[in-house]
Amino acid sequence: MEQYDFGMVGLGVMGRNLLFNIADHGYAVAGLDLDQGKVDALHTEATDKQVVKGTGSAQEFVSMLKTPRAIMLLVPAGKPVDGAIASLVPLLEKGDIIVDGGNSFFHDTDRRFNELNEKGIHFFGMGVSGGEEGARRGPSMMPGGDRDAYERLRPIFESVAAKVNGEPCVTYMGTGSAGHYVKMVHNGIEYGIMQLISEVYDLLKRGLNYKEDQLQQIFQSWNEGELKSFLLEITGIVLKKVDDETGERLVEVISDVARAKGTGKWTSQNAMDIQAPIPVIDAAVAMRDLSKYKAERVQASEKLTWDGSANESDEHGHLIQHIKKAYHFAMLTIYAQGLSQLQLASKEYQYGLNLAEVAKIWRGGCIIRSTSLEDFMQAFIKNPELPNIMLDDKIAATLLDTQEAARFTVKFAVDKGISASAFMTALAYFDAYRTAKLPTNLVQAQRDYFGAHTYERTDREGVFHTQWD
Amino acid sequence: MEQYDFGMVGLGVMGRNLLFNIADHGYAVAGLDLDQGKVDALHTEATDKQVVKGTGSAQEFVSMLKTPRAIMLLVPAGKPVDGAIASLVPLLEKGDIIVDGGNSFFHDTDRRFNELNEKGIHFFGMGVSGGEEGARRGPSMMPGGDRDAYERLRPIFESVAAKVNGEPCVTYMGTGSAGHYVKMVHNGIEYGIMQLISEVYDLLKRGLNYKEDQLQQIFQSWNEGELKSFLLEITGIVLKKVDDETGERLVEVISDVARAKGTGKWTSQNAMDIQAPIPVIDAAVAMRDLSKYKAERVQASEKLTWDGSANESDEHGHLIQHIKKAYHFAMLTIYAQGLSQLQLASKEYQYGLNLAEVAKIWRGGCIIRSTSLEDFMQAFIKNPELPNIMLDDKIAATLLDTQEAARFTVKFAVDKGISASAFMTALAYFDAYRTAKLPTNLVQAQRDYFGAHTYERTDREGVFHTQWD
Repeated sequence: MEQYDFGMVGLGVMGRNLLFNIADHGYAVAGLDLDQGKVDALHTEATDKQVVKGTGSAQEFVSMLKTPRAIMLLVPAGKPVDGAIASLVPLLEKGDIIVDGGNSFFHDTDRRFNELNEKGIHFFGMGVSGGEEGARRGPSMMPGGDRDAYERLRPIFESVAAKVNGEPCVTYMGTGSAGHYVKMVHNGIEYGIMQLISEVYDLLKRGLNYKEDQLQQIFQSWNEGELKSFLLEITGIVLKKVDDETGERLVEVISDVARAKGTGKWTSQNAMDIQAPIPVIDAAVAMRDLSKYKAERVQASEKLTWDGSANESDEHGHLIQHIKKAYHFAMLTIYAQGLSQLQLASKEYQYGLNLAEVAKIWRGGCIIRSTSLEDFMQAFIKNPELPNIMLDDKIAATLLDTQEAARFTVKFAVDKGISASAFMTALAYFDAYRTAKLPTNLVQAQRDYFGAHTYERTDREGVFHTQWD
Repeated sequence: MEQYDFGMVGLGVMGRNLLFNIADHGYAVAGLDLDQGKVDALHTEATDKQVVKGTGSAQEFVSMLKTPRAIMLLVPAGKPVDGAIASLVPLLEKGDIIVDGGNSFFHDTDRRFNELNEKGIHFFGMGVSGGEEGARRGPSMMPGGDRDAYERLRPIFESVAAKVNGEPCVTYMGTGSAGHYVKMVHNGIEYGIMQLISEVYDLLKRGLNYKEDQLQQIFQSWNEGELKSFLLEITGIVLKKVDDETGERLVEVISDVARAKGTGKWTSQNAMDIQAPIPVIDAAVAMRDLSKYKAERVQASEKLTWDGSANESDEHGHLIQHIKKAYHFAMLTIYAQGLSQLQLASKEYQYGLNLAEVAKIWRGGCIIRSTSLEDFMQAFIKNPELPNIMLDDKIAATLLDTQEAARFTVKFAVDKGISASAFMTALAYFDAYRTAKLPTNLVQAQRDYFGAHTYERTDREGVFHTQWD
C-alpha cells in the first residue's frame, strides 16, 4: 500500500494544481478531500504519465503514503487547518511531516508547531504564492520553522518551484512562523500594489478620458523593462476581456465592492504591533473596506460634489508619462514598507530572515514578482542589515528621479477629485521618512500637557515632565 | 469602620485627581496604592473639607468601604487590572461593584465582566477622558455594561463629570464593553487630530516660515468659534512655554520620537476587523511609529532630497486662511471616521450605542471636545442611524465650503515636500467616499484572475468566475 511519495489534503484549485505539478516531476502523489467531486476531478484531470490517487478517507490516504510521511495541507486558514490536523494526527507516526501551505495566521502556526512537536510530528508552515497558475506551473514558496523537516522535502519543493536563472523560488526563510509571516507581508505588498494599479486605472479613465482599448494597451506597454511585473501583466489581460453577455469589457460590469481574505489586514494589524509604518498597505486595506459601503457612496456622490477642472485629453501623452513614473515611485515605496516590516519582524520574532533570500524567491512565481526584486536582492546582498531599501543608492536614485512625477500625480488627482490614497500615502511616507526633524515633538508636548505622559529632550538623556500652564 | 462611600485603586495622577474631585462633592473617599509615596501624597494634598483616607493594604481598604462597596480601578491597562481585581475579589461580597476606569482593551472588559459576574460581583468598564486636569475638575466619562451597577453609582459620576449647559458629560453608553470601546475610538480620533495639528505646525513653520511667537498666536486665534477645541487650546499654550534651561521654546527641544500607549493602535486594528475605514487614524498611528526611526530619517534626509519651491512668506496671510479651512475639513473627516466606526461596532458587538449621546458627552471634559460636537449631536438626533456625519446636511455644507482649501493645502505640502499624511488621507477618504463607482472592480477582476476568488456583477445577482486568458 505504501507507495505514494507525497500527500495533499485539500483538493481545491491550489491543492489540486500543486499536486499535479509535483506529479509532473515524477512523484507519486495522493490527495484527500471530503468533497467527492474534487476527488473525482483529480482523477479526471490527471494524465497517463502522472501517478495520482485521490480519496475521501483519511485512513486510506495515510495508509497510501510512504513513511515517514510527507503531507501538505492546502485548506482555508483557521479552523479547517486545525480540523485537518486533528483528523490526521491519530493516524500518523512519529517522524511524519505535516506542511501547512495555506495562508495561516502566523501565531496559529507557532501554536500548531508546539502542539505537534509534543506528539513527535514534524510541522512547518510554508507560504505558497502564484495563485492557480503558479501552483500548476511553478509557485514561489516560503517555508519556515522545522528546518530538518524542510530539508527532507526540499528536493520536491525545489523541483516544482518557479525558476529564475535556473534557481528555484523556494528557500528556507527562518525559524518558527517565518514562512507564513513572509507570505503575509507578501500579500500586504500585493494589496498595496493592486490598490495603486486601480488608482492608475481611475486616473487615466476618469481623469484623462482614456478609453478601454487604450487602457489595455497602456498597461500592456508599461509591463516592460524596469516596470515588468505579474500584476501589470494581468491588468492588461483583464482589461482586454470582453463580457459574453453584454459585449462590454468584463471589468466594467464587475461590482466595485472589493472582497478580502484577511492577509492584508493581518499585515497592517501586525505592523502596528511591531511599530512598522506601512501606510500604503494600511490605506489599501481601508479602501477595500470603504468600497463595501456602496449605498453610502452613491448617496455621498450626489451630496459631496466637486466641480474639478474638466477632464483633460492627454493629446501628446505627456501626462501619462508622469503617471507612469509616479507608479514606479509609489510601487517602490510599497516594497520598501513591506521589506522594512520584515526586517523589524525578524528582530521581534527572532526569525533570522535573510532579506536577500526573500527578495530572491519573490523574483519568480509569486504574485508580486517584478523586475525590481533583482535590485532589492542586490541591495540586501550589499547590506544584509539595510533597514529600508529607500536608503540603497540605486533605489534612492530611482526615487529621486521619479519623485517629481509622484508630486505631479498627487496634485493631478487632487484637482480632479479622484481619490488616490496609495499615491498620497506613498508620498507622505517618503516625505516623512526623509525628514530629520518631524513635528511629532508637538505631539509629545501635547501628551505631556494633558496626560503627564512625559517626554524626552534632544539635548540630554532623561525623561521629563512639565507643568505647562 | 465602614464609613467611606467610594474607593479608588491606583493613586497615580488620574486616580488621585478623580478621587479629590469626588471628595469635593461631599463623598467620603478611600484610596489604595501599593506605593506608600502615593498614599502619602493623597493625605498631604487633601484639604480639611475633604474626607479622604489612603492605605497600602487591600484588606484595610475594603473594610473601610460602606457595603455594597463601590470600587474604581485607575491602574495601567492589562495585567495590572487583572492583578488588582484578583487581590480584591477574595475580600469582596456579593453585590459589591468594581468599575474599571482605565484604558482597558475592550475584549478584556468583556472577559472580566464574565469572570466577576460568576462570582456575584458587579463589574463595568468606563472610559474616562480629560487627562489630569479633567479628572480633577470634571472629566467626560463613558460607562458601559452592567446598567444596574452604573445606576447605583450614577449620582457620584454625574456630580463629578464636566457639565455642558448644566448637563453632565457622563451617560450609560451601552451593553458589554461599550464604554471602553467608545473611549478607545475617542482616543483614535485624538491621535488623528493631534497628527493633523502637528502637520499644520510643520506647514506653517517649514513651509511658510512662521516664527514661534506667530505660531503660538495663530493657534490661539484659531481656538475660537467653530474651531474652538481643547487640542487647539493646549497647542497655543504649549507653543508659548519657554524652556528654563535653554531659553528656547520648550517644544523645540523636545524629541520628535513619539510615544503611544496603544489605544490608537487598537482603534485601527479593530476598525480593520469590523471593516470600518478610518485611514486618517491609521496614518496617525503609522506616523507615530515612523517617528521612532530617527537614525534612518537623518540618513534619509541627506540622501532623499527635494528641491521644492523655496519657503514662501505669507505676507498677506492668505495662505494661512486656506490652511485653517483645510484643518476644519480634515478635522471633520476624522470625527466622521471615528463615529462611523462606532455605528458599525454597535451593530457588530450589539452595544446599542446612541451616537447622539456619545457626541453629547464628548462636548465637555474630554480631550477631543470641540464646538463641532454640538453639530454631530444634532445630526444624530435628527437621524440616529446616520452611518456617516458627512451625509448630514450641515456637515456636508461645511465640507463643500472647505474642500477647495483642503485641496490647496495638500498641493502646497506636496510642493514643499512636507509630509501631510493626515491632510492627504482625509482628502483621499472624502474623495473615495463620494465616489459612486470606485476602481475596485479592477481589484476584484485581478483577484479572480490569479486566485479564482470570484466576483459579483453590477447587473445581476450571483457569484462569478472567469477564465481570463
